Amino acid sequence: IPSKLPQVGTTVFTTMSALASQYHAINLGQGFPDFPMNGKLVELVTDAMRHNYNQYAPMPGWMPLREVLCEKFESLYGATIHPDSEITITPGGTYALYTALTTILEPGDEVIVLEPAYDSYVPNIIVNGGVPVLVSLNDDFSIPWDRVGAAVSDRTKAIMINSPNNPTGSILSADDIEALRQLIRRQPMFIVSDEVYEHLVFDGKAHHSLLRYPDLMENAFVCFSFGKVYHCTGWKLGYCVAPKALTAAFRKIHQYNCFSCHTPSQVALAGFLKDKDQYLSLGAFFQEKRDFFFKGMEATRFVLKPSFGSYFACATYNRITDLPDAQFAGVLVKDHGVATIPVSAFYQDPSGHHLLRFCFGKKQETLEKAIEKLTRL
Amino acid sequence: IPSKLPQVGTTVFTTMSALASQYHAINLGQGFPDFPMNGKLVELVTDAMRHNYNQYAPMPGWMPLREVLCEKFESLYGATIHPDSEITITPGGTYALYTALTTILEPGDEVIVLEPAYDSYVPNIIVNGGVPVLVSLNDDFSIPWDRVGAAVSDRTKAIMINSPNNPTGSILSADDIEALRQLIRRQPMFIVSDEVYEHLVFDGKAHHSLLRYPDLMENAFVCFSFGKVYHCTGWKLGYCVAPKALTAAFRKIHQYNCFSCHTPSQVALAGFLKDKDQYLSLGAFFQEKRDFFFKGMEATRFVLKPSFGSYFACATYNRITDLPDAQFAGVLVKDHGVATIPVSAFYQDPSGHHLLRFCFGKKQETLEKAIEKLTRL
Ligand SMILES: CSCCC(=O)C(=O)O
Ligand SMILES: CSCCC(=O)C(=O)O
Repeated sequence: IPSKLPQVGTTVFTTMSALASQYHAINLGQGFPDFPMNGKLVELVTDAMRHNYNQYAPMPGWMPLREVLCEKFESLYGATIHPDSEITITPGGTYALYTALTTILEPGDEVIVLEPAYDSYVPNIIVNGGVPVLVSLNDDFSIPWDRVGAAVSDRTKAIMINSPNNPTGSILSADDIEALRQLIRRQPMFIVSDEVYEHLVFDGKAHHSLLRYPDLMENAFVCFSFGKVYHCTGWKLGYCVAPKALTAAFRKIHQYNCFSCHTPSQVALAGFLKDKDQYLSLGAFFQEKRDFFFKGMEATRFVLKPSFGSYFACATYNRITDLPDAQFAGVLVKDHGVATIPVSAFYQDPSGHHLLRFCFGKKQETLEKAIEKLTRL
Repeated sequence: IPSKLPQVGTTVFTTMSALASQYHAINLGQGFPDFPMNGKLVELVTDAMRHNYNQYAPMPGWMPLREVLCEKFESLYGATIHPDSEITITPGGTYALYTALTTILEPGDEVIVLEPAYDSYVPNIIVNGGVPVLVSLNDDFSIPWDRVGAAVSDRTKAIMINSPNNPTGSILSADDIEALRQLIRRQPMFIVSDEVYEHLVFDGKAHHSLLRYPDLMENAFVCFSFGKVYHCTGWKLGYCVAPKALTAAFRKIHQYNCFSCHTPSQVALAGFLKDKDQYLSLGAFFQEKRDFFFKGMEATRFVLKPSFGSYFACATYNRITDLPDAQFAGVLVKDHGVATIPVSAFYQDPSGHHLLRFCFGKKQETLEKAIEKLTRL
């Protein structure tokens, strides 16, 4: 059978997590927390199941959950989103991104992707018949808007953006938003915005969610994740916000793909998120971890690039070795007991990269142990 | 935005369930049980969550769950399926079908679909660039293999089969399997087998799972559902069995679509299914409901066609009215308080049909109340 994705192998996350357990290494690779999730949320799911919320949820999602999310959009971003027609609950943020691309792409359509990029973007574009057009971020992870502009053609159908960014830890600025606006004014295109690390923004900075910008939202799909922010990546639940016409088209795909999502989790989250502190506290919670990690890493010969959001930070290591990052990540997990993700895995051309991604969304004890091992290098 | 599915509206299941609640009607429409699911399974999920099984499951699924399913395949169907390379856990049976089609279809590929057909098949084929080729079942719901043969062209890429069948309640016979074998011998093609009602087979008949036939399995994707058989349709969990090469291609799509599935449910089901009675008892459990429903319906002017499997049965009603089924279903839910599904919704051409589908997978009390109302007609 001729695969549509001949070049695709096992994801780097799977490979590194497997190596981490094989070598009993500290896992700062795959992006998931190693601390327990909120026990209250667990009990709310249990309640929902015991009260027989075990049958199909409505195709677009459990209405009270959609409503509480729309209240959040209003209070955080001043955005008026209609729960009935502009938001769809999905089995995860990755699925939301996939379905958005399935909704808009016709064979030959080009999609601009900024590298390094989360590893699902390019395969998602290809499976849906599109053509990824790659633009590399600047060395400081800022977006080279001039080169983005030069990458636009009359086949450009969409641009994918991601803030807070995986793997770089950078976030969009007001200037980026203005540059995006100019780009789209010159040539209208869809925006697929990956905001799965929504609440994980540090140092009092604002999350420039696309939801703040009604003009940009006219052609946007904004994808979110419950798993990433509420410490339950294994629940595979997220959502997609888009204007009415785009949501209608999105749901036509969704209703025959997954159709609907896990009911008890939706019922539980609808109750849980009435308490705004559950998301308002997340920035400080992860900032403490970032600060602890950055402080500890000063004792090593790794040099971290700043992280303003997400739970990732990237480090150079040229005071330790000249090895390319994929090789060095192998050495680190096997010989030094720390799993990381080589940033080359986020590039189409994996050669010539010397950058490792660390996930600091872990228990303090885990970070301590990892730093201790890294200090020996 | 030009939709890939211009003709698609709200699914009939959503529409009828909404009408059912609006008119406080007894809902024998959408296929989901109204009795509680197994409390033990609920407690196992709770345990899994409390024990921190809340992060990503492996992309192909939780290994102990895959293993216990493979033991089941061995004992029920004499099939040796490799848990590591031939089975993938999915967010529902519908998603498994969708992903199988995404895996194999190239633009212009034809797929044979037997009508009436579950309403996702045709949109799934179209979204993936394929062309549905429709063949109507005989009046007794048997498969017209001569007409299936005549529908084959050199563009035929696959055939979709579904046993136990939704909406007809029919099941494949040994003769059907032989006819399928002949068809595929004449022209090799993929088989996408929807077996989501796997254990719901009555009267001591055998479920002719494709898994029994190694020669047919060489080019088959077989899709299953946990929700349909364990009374938790809202959990959206299923699986796809296919030979190694097909599974590898399937996973390349899955790993960038949903990536992985709800971890606590997988952990729970792995424990739950060690008790073989949980599935061995299902046939008798639903047969009792079928028998109760058929007996009660004798007092009405509906005439049921036999149901050998699934939890559906179809009825003609020409002693009551000449109305087409979609209209009559509207009258039934609004004026007589019973929601059903018009079988026309399972046809590309919805005109000229006079058949209603009843879901008997409900509490005895619900079936009694519905029959009482239907008796008045
Ligand atoms: C879907 S597995 C990848 C998890 C993740 O988002 C990451 O580590 O970048
Ligand atoms: C996915 S909603 C449809 C449920 C069902 O399978 C049916 O009623 O046929």
